[in-house]
Amino acid sequence: MSVKPKAVVLLSGGMDSCVTTAIAKQTHTLALLHASYGQRTEARERRAFDEIADFYGVKDRLVIRLDSLRQIGGSALTDLRIAVPENPSDKPAGIPITYVPFRNAHLLSTAVSWAEVIDAQAIFIGAVFEDSSGYPDCRPEYYRVFSELIEVGTRPETRIEIQTPVIHMRKSEIIRKGMELGAPLHFTWSCYQAEEEACGACDSCRLRLRAFAEAGSADPIAYRAQVAR
Amino acid sequence: MSVKPKAVVLLSGGMDSCVTTAIAKQTHTLALLHASYGQRTEARERRAFDEIADFYGVKDRLVIRLDSLRQIGGSALTDLRIAVPENPSDKPAGIPITYVPFRNAHLLSTAVSWAEVIDAQAIFIGAVFEDSSGYPDCRPEYYRVFSELIEVGTRPETRIEIQTPVIHMRKSEIIRKGMELGAPLHFTWSCYQAEEEACGACDSCRLRLRAFAEAGSADPIAYRAQVAR
Repeated sequence: MSVKPKAVVLLSGGMDSCVTTAIAKQTHTLALLHASYGQRTEARERRAFDEIADFYGVKDRLVIRLDSLRQIGGSALTDLRIAVPENPSDKPAGIPITYVPFRNAHLLSTAVSWAEVIDAQAIFIGAVFEDSSGYPDCRPEYYRVFSELIEVGTRPETRIEIQTPVIHMRKSEIIRKGMELGAPLHFTWSCYQAEEEACGACDSCRLRLRAFAEAGSADPIAYRAQVAR
Repeated sequence: MSVKPKAVVLLSGGMDSCVTTAIAKQTHTLALLHASYGQRTEARERRAFDEIADFYGVKDRLVIRLDSLRQIGGSALTDLRIAVPENPSDKPAGIPITYVPFRNAHLLSTAVSWAEVIDAQAIFIGAVFEDSSGYPDCRPEYYRVFSELIEVGTRPETRIEIQTPVIHMRKSEIIRKGMELGAPLHFTWSCYQAEEEACGACDSCRLRLRAFAEAGSADPIAYRAQVAR
């Protein structure tokens, strides 16, 4: 029996990372990493992580706190004084107010440290470029440079590859891919501001609902009653 | 009166970062960043940070915890089951056992997030290449790639430059530079394993003692009585 190489997968608990986990599982033994960083819905995202990790029977889990991101603030996701925009006309052009400054570097750095210690050969991250919110640290170029940083910043014998399998997919393609692989989309959470039932109104809910509509299927999670679907 | 641009300075509390702070102060308004990451001497390093920050009268301070590095382990600095080597013959060739996997990426990522929020235009880090311990993330190449990561991973209008003013200095030159600038070397802490009086035996103490000898001056901090100086 051949043993699959180990990979660290960043699993926030959203759809993109859930489907990325399903893709990684085809070729790698999974080690799942989750971070709470003071985002509004951190408890709900943690539950999604646990349920997805249980679904795949993964024992190798690392859950970390990045309190520094809340201390630093500067984003509607981590600073409760900044509102999450609901009405598209409220949105200024450019980088969204939900951008957490340089967040993915914190997540990837943790993934690299862990991968180097547990001897994982790959890091999977569910970054989405084309159909996403315009965060600078979701661009393919960003991951190319981060790979170079791993090359120069770790032990000479360390080889860790970053894989971004959904980066060029539309959200609706990610949903179809997830359904094809039997990913537990019913356990995922995307809403930026509610934890019981998804609000259906924030950027992240809107993207999700539009994607399920495009994919021609019903979103299996619960939304507030007033949301038109 | 012209206002100096703001810089985030990584201040561990050791000599290199103290002298880097003194250098940064010549051209920038200081914002000082310190991290505890479960290293053996974290309380003592924090005290050094506070004393140096007080010395320079800096109000803009951010102290963070990187507990993930202790959770991950894999280094003699963060895993109490791995001994800090004292006898040079105990040292395996290559990367030292005190290397904390990919640590500087965590520190720099925090510095970038903070710099982006407070509108700092530079990050100073006291990495030392030539006369140091051989950590891969102290090489000039590493900082060149990290600068590129900042360029691609932050808002388009963000301009943050990484400065490594002591990277090519020998430790003895760093001491001379610090004395020339009136840096408070008496507040710095370098020892990897003791917090009351420096052990004088670990790698970091040895490097420090040798450097003061080369610089022709006495180290102002206290060592255990048995240390031959």
